[in-house]
Amino acid sequence: MAAVRARTVLLTGANRGIGLELVKQLLRAPRPPAWIFATCRDPEGPRAQELRDLASKHPNLVLVKLDVANPSAVTAAAKVVEGKLNGAGLNLLINNAGIYTPTASLETVDAEDMIRTYKTNAVGPMIMAQVFLPLLKKAARDSTEKGLSCSKAAIINISTILGSIEKTPESFFHPVISYRCSKAALNMLTKCQALTYGEAGILCVALHPGWVKTDMGSQEADLTVDTSVRGLLSVLPILSEKHSGALLNWEAGQVLPGASSGSPPGLLGGHHGGSSFTSCAQI
Amino acid sequence: MAAVRARTVLLTGANRGIGLELVKQLLRAPRPPAWIFATCRDPEGPRAQELRDLASKHPNLVLVKLDVANPSAVTAAAKVVEGKLNGAGLNLLINNAGIYTPTASLETVDAEDMIRTYKTNAVGPMIMAQVFLPLLKKAARDSTEKGLSCSKAAIINISTILGSIEKTPESFFHPVISYRCSKAALNMLTKCQALTYGEAGILCVALHPGWVKTDMGSQEADLTVDTSVRGLLSVLPILSEKHSGALLNWEAGQVLPGASSGSPPGLLGGHHGGSSFTSCAQI
Repeated sequence: MAAVRARTVLLTGANRGIGLELVKQLLRAPRPPAWIFATCRDPEGPRAQELRDLASKHPNLVLVKLDVANPSAVTAAAKVVEGKLNGAGLNLLINNAGIYTPTASLETVDAEDMIRTYKTNAVGPMIMAQVFLPLLKKAARDSTEKGLSCSKAAIINISTILGSIEKTPESFFHPVISYRCSKAALNMLTKCQALTYGEAGILCVALHPGWVKTDMGSQEADLTVDTSVRGLLSVLPILSEKHSGALLNWEAGQVLPGASSGSPPGLLGGHHGGSSFTSCAQI
Repeated sequence: MAAVRARTVLLTGANRGIGLELVKQLLRAPRPPAWIFATCRDPEGPRAQELRDLASKHPNLVLVKLDVANPSAVTAAAKVVEGKLNGAGLNLLINNAGIYTPTASLETVDAEDMIRTYKTNAVGPMIMAQVFLPLLKKAARDSTEKGLSCSKAAIINISTILGSIEKTPESFFHPVISYRCSKAALNMLTKCQALTYGEAGILCVALHPGWVKTDMGSQEADLTVDTSVRGLLSVLPILSEKHSGALLNWEAGQVLPGASSGSPPGLLGGHHGGSSFTSCAQI
């Protein structure tokens, strides 16, 4: 299996769930990144203990305080990261932080929940990309690789099949309105980012991690966080310009090379065609 | 051409553009609604003069103050409407109010614009439907019609092809990030509304009005507001349960009966299949 070759990586929401597991598996990679910037809202707090333990053992892991819902906090974090990078660029930005109101049906959801969720899940990734753009562009310029790739410069938005309008009827036993609407917007944002940042050499993709046993996904979910993250990390190295702007599945193990996805009209498989990722029924 | 037979209609953003033209054409219909509730933020202000002039001539036109971005204002407006209806239900809710930042590229868009636009364009229609739901349900219960229709009970969200992720590359010469993201969310909301409210007998559809010469669309646009609204009003009477949850085009004149839309995988034509509306390239 190909491994991610990004030398510098930044993740949001890195203190638990998929974010924390991404940090762990990146640290264990055959050739780990030179720098992993693991960001979360409170790296000094009780919920970041595991992250601090890892940082004490891995000098390439740097904890940075960052709240994606607070643009000035993002700018402050970028200054810290830029200082550490000391002239190098950022290869891989993983917008993983997200929030979720499990009970939000159309009967119960309110304006406040809608806006809070949008702020973190859609506006946050937009601001992150804007603020870290100079470092991503630098990585792209410094690379000798042709085309787009995660080892050159990439923005990966952790999204969900729950943001796919066409797939909604299949998973509507979980209405989660505020989450779905924010993720539909995030999938749109990803397409806009691909169309805007592609010419600067930056790949932009949304990834569906599956329905994962985390605080967010609950223990009813059908995937362990280990399986999901192994899947996600196996997808990253094979992404190229043909995937840019699309929502893709974590499950690269089911790739049918050269075949179309066979999925119903929708986001999975992407607009550009040629994607060989399978569609999926997980939420 | 079939005409809308809804007896009671409520529109938001009714003082100008598509909203005002909808009011005018509904008033001129062969059998106009018994009540048209035309809502806007400031029905007493200078921008609602034309609406007031119409109301002075048409006793079935009632102006109601309503800001979709303010949930308590929506609740207050619903009380006024309920009083006027005097026991009758509301057949047709047209969520037309929307805002737009024409200059919002990824270079210039900020968190504030993203949130303000989402609040009006996506959260507003959600709150409107929640608050007017009892009146819509009443209209559905009081109807003897089978299936779903605009003359029975319906929520029409005026959306846009700019909210379609697959169609984004074709129109990205206007990036309008905050608008696109809000409308992708609105299209998702429409699907969720269809899945939730369908069993109460309420049709839920998103309509693309074309690129219209209004304050929002500018004079560069390719459709007059008259043409767009005639198109929209010719679509409403032929909507049924097979369209519920989909984004459909204003241009019912190009219907190819029984054929699929032939559009690339995407929102147009809808998930449920069977839509005979054509896709479109207008923004």
